[in-house]
Amino acid sequence: MRAADLVIRAAGAAGIRYSFVNPGTTEMPLVEAFDRVQGVRPVLCPFEGVATGAADGYARMAGVPGLTVLHLGPGYANGMANLHNARRARSPVINLIGEHTTDHRAFDPPLAMPIEALASSLPGHVRTVLEAADAGTAFAECYGAATRGLISHLVFAHDLQSLEVEGDLSVLSAARRETVPHETVEAVARSLTHAEKPALLLGGWALSGEGLRLAGQVAEACGADLFHETFAARIERGAGMPSPVRLPYFPESARDALKAYDVVVLVGAPSPVGFFGYPGLSGRLVEDARERTLCSPEADVGQALEALADTLGITPSSPLCPGSEHRVPDLPRGPLTLETLGQAFAALQPEEAIVVDEGITSGFFYHPLAAHVSPHTTLTITGGAIGCGIPLSIGAALACPERPVLTLQADGSALFTVQGLWTQARENLNIKTVICSNRSYDILKLEVARAGNTEPGPMTRNLTDLSRPDIGWTDIARGFGVPALSAQTSEAFVTALQTALREPGPFLVEAVLG
Amino acid sequence: MRAADLVIRAAGAAGIRYSFVNPGTTEMPLVEAFDRVQGVRPVLCPFEGVATGAADGYARMAGVPGLTVLHLGPGYANGMANLHNARRARSPVINLIGEHTTDHRAFDPPLAMPIEALASSLPGHVRTVLEAADAGTAFAECYGAATRGLISHLVFAHDLQSLEVEGDLSVLSAARRETVPHETVEAVARSLTHAEKPALLLGGWALSGEGLRLAGQVAEACGADLFHETFAARIERGAGMPSPVRLPYFPESARDALKAYDVVVLVGAPSPVGFFGYPGLSGRLVEDARERTLCSPEADVGQALEALADTLGITPSSPLCPGSEHRVPDLPRGPLTLETLGQAFAALQPEEAIVVDEGITSGFFYHPLAAHVSPHTTLTITGGAIGCGIPLSIGAALACPERPVLTLQADGSALFTVQGLWTQARENLNIKTVICSNRSYDILKLEVARAGNTEPGPMTRNLTDLSRPDIGWTDIARGFGVPALSAQTSEAFVTALQTALREPGPFLVEAVLG
Repeated sequence: MRAADLVIRAAGAAGIRYSFVNPGTTEMPLVEAFDRVQGVRPVLCPFEGVATGAADGYARMAGVPGLTVLHLGPGYANGMANLHNARRARSPVINLIGEHTTDHRAFDPPLAMPIEALASSLPGHVRTVLEAADAGTAFAECYGAATRGLISHLVFAHDLQSLEVEGDLSVLSAARRETVPHETVEAVARSLTHAEKPALLLGGWALSGEGLRLAGQVAEACGADLFHETFAARIERGAGMPSPVRLPYFPESARDALKAYDVVVLVGAPSPVGFFGYPGLSGRLVEDARERTLCSPEADVGQALEALADTLGITPSSPLCPGSEHRVPDLPRGPLTLETLGQAFAALQPEEAIVVDEGITSGFFYHPLAAHVSPHTTLTITGGAIGCGIPLSIGAALACPERPVLTLQADGSALFTVQGLWTQARENLNIKTVICSNRSYDILKLEVARAGNTEPGPMTRNLTDLSRPDIGWTDIARGFGVPALSAQTSEAFVTALQTALREPGPFLVEAVLG
Repeated sequence: MRAADLVIRAAGAAGIRYSFVNPGTTEMPLVEAFDRVQGVRPVLCPFEGVATGAADGYARMAGVPGLTVLHLGPGYANGMANLHNARRARSPVINLIGEHTTDHRAFDPPLAMPIEALASSLPGHVRTVLEAADAGTAFAECYGAATRGLISHLVFAHDLQSLEVEGDLSVLSAARRETVPHETVEAVARSLTHAEKPALLLGGWALSGEGLRLAGQVAEACGADLFHETFAARIERGAGMPSPVRLPYFPESARDALKAYDVVVLVGAPSPVGFFGYPGLSGRLVEDARERTLCSPEADVGQALEALADTLGITPSSPLCPGSEHRVPDLPRGPLTLETLGQAFAALQPEEAIVVDEGITSGFFYHPLAAHVSPHTTLTITGGAIGCGIPLSIGAALACPERPVLTLQADGSALFTVQGLWTQARENLNIKTVICSNRSYDILKLEVARAGNTEPGPMTRNLTDLSRPDIGWTDIARGFGVPALSAQTSEAFVTALQTALREPGPFLVEAVLG
């Protein structure tokens, strides 16, 4: 078989069912491989940032690596921002990047870029296929690295993709996560037992259903409070589950939230730091003296939590942390504001929904309002690179076709990967996108005010404003084949979202915020 | 003044009148500087690929560097593909990239990326501001590098931007281009004189009005034919000017076009190579034995051409190369095809138009048809990174407000930076965008066929096709605030483009190709 076919076959053997593709000439043998090899279905994304964000969403929900096919250096560069988010989500993603034919690269043709150097600047794993016979091993190596949470890159020259190779698949071996030493677990257990007021800060796997149940038992046994990292890759939420408090976004509030605790134990979360640094404010939110680490996000969080529970004498019959009661907000009335938008969204989201939250300032209100609704999964913007919402929803919808996907999407961020609406339409995905149309980069207005500039000049106002002209989101959605409605009041928004939820495929609701 | 203000003041002193901006928290002092310092107007671009492409278009037309303000590593990464095109166009571009506050970077906050490593992977110039007092010198260094045709990057930490510094501007010094030695000129002159059938391959400055006039005189004196590089950054075209033949895109055709010449002299163009490499085809299009280099694109092409003319005894009274006659194609009738689209576009483009040609397969027909129309300037996709058309038009329109801009835009490529339509609307730019809506990546279908796959399978067809659903370009344009019309016949297209040309601001015409 051809080397390209072998790679796609290996991807299928790894359990990967979809690939997110924006191809060019140098990837055509990989494209044709999808016809020769069964098992991995390629999904056309009309911009690479859509492909990489979709691969991240697929990885977060499917539990296997997301796979992309990207065109040379410029195509890869277009996908980097969402790969940055994937890296911060610790999502396994494998990028197949075409390269010029081996002889041609030396001529520095117009599209040539130093792909390896570019890819290496994103901390991860880069592997070049040096000869066709090497393709299977190279893919296996990338797979191993991806399962360690590294963004992996397979650079694959055009001519090598077409060469015939032996069809044997290399052994695919997922990396094993590091276990946490007994001494660490014991030390953390002692800290928790002796603490006057302890807290657990949860991240990564600790925010899975099982992770939350275990963490809740630990909290119950030690009288600890639960927090979760501000931007979780994936968190199970809703009635019946422990409901950790989200660490606030701004550093002053986050520090305040944690200041009453004499011990803060990190469980699959890195040491918390401010999203941005500000003069005179420490970037770290908890000092060394109060911070304990049970396990890093990269470690085997499940093993660590189980060992901790065991050390604390928690048994199957120990009391569970009281799960969140089931409580659905009332449907709002009157003007459509961030608060009523969040309220309506939380009230209407169906059971088992996957909520993609790139609401930015609009999402801050929604999050607590959804703590007690029906069980659901939330994905957020992990790396701060805006434009992940529409792509993440695509990958999540393909990974979980039986679950509805609802995206809470800031307007400014939506513009970065708006082409992804077309892929939603082509694949007829069950995704409802709510555009929080405040017609401004509101977070930047907040930052200008925080920096003491209470009367910004016309240029600053101009650069933080998305009106003039107002963006017509329903026109744009329809242009991409997605039906859409616009709402200017809470009542209209409720009706529009109900309509959207009744439709089988993608739908967009523009929420014009007052 | 603040360090940020100093940098913007220096940009103004360098003759830069516009900056293309997508800011975040770490760039807010630079944003506020536009209010404190007069002379450089910031233009909001709702995606960084729009900002960098606009900076390229501005640089190509204004003759001073294009300036961007980009948000950290992910924002910069989003702009890289069009910076790659700018690099291949040898456009001077300076990117101001915010970085986390100095202390905060070490905490590896969510948005942190190794910006310098990332920027260094694009061959160019990277300079980090190490202390605020250094900002003016750092900008001057970037300016010098940019004027050598290097993409320049100024990495500027958030906190340093706000510090007070001495207001003295560093001396801005544009790089001088290398002159071509007398011996080289003499050798080329001898080759041309002794050649049986010589050709000149023109690129860079040789495609300016003055460059073409000089090259035309040389050609006339030596009986040489004129060619120009396939993807010119900027070329003056139309009646009264020498009309070099465009080197064909596919390597077989390009090789054929040049094979009759015993001497091919490179004048500001690199040695021609195929856009892509193919098995069994040499990537170089002219062998060493026939190739002579008068000057590289980076050299002082004007000096070289003048010296060559002088050596050949060309005087002010020497005969000029016969300029292209003035001939406008007839307005087409009947079905709308690539050919009739190109014909109508060429027939209707106003005098002194700036034509941005990212037509890809649709542009191949237009180019020769416009050789004899009224004088105009054409900008093309130099680096093959698709998505440059809409951004280039923005920069060109701001650089030359008195000239109409017409963009011949492939649909697949338009999707990459479609948000730029909003900036066209906000700035009320005189840009008419023609979307060549063939609903497919036609160039890839051609490549599949060239590779011998005459019956591509369903996956390959799916990945090279942009229908299902068809994209509604007029809806999308209106959503971004740009009026639009759709045309399905030649007659309708003529009427739509005439309407567009009568309107003062931006307009989009969707040409639905049969």
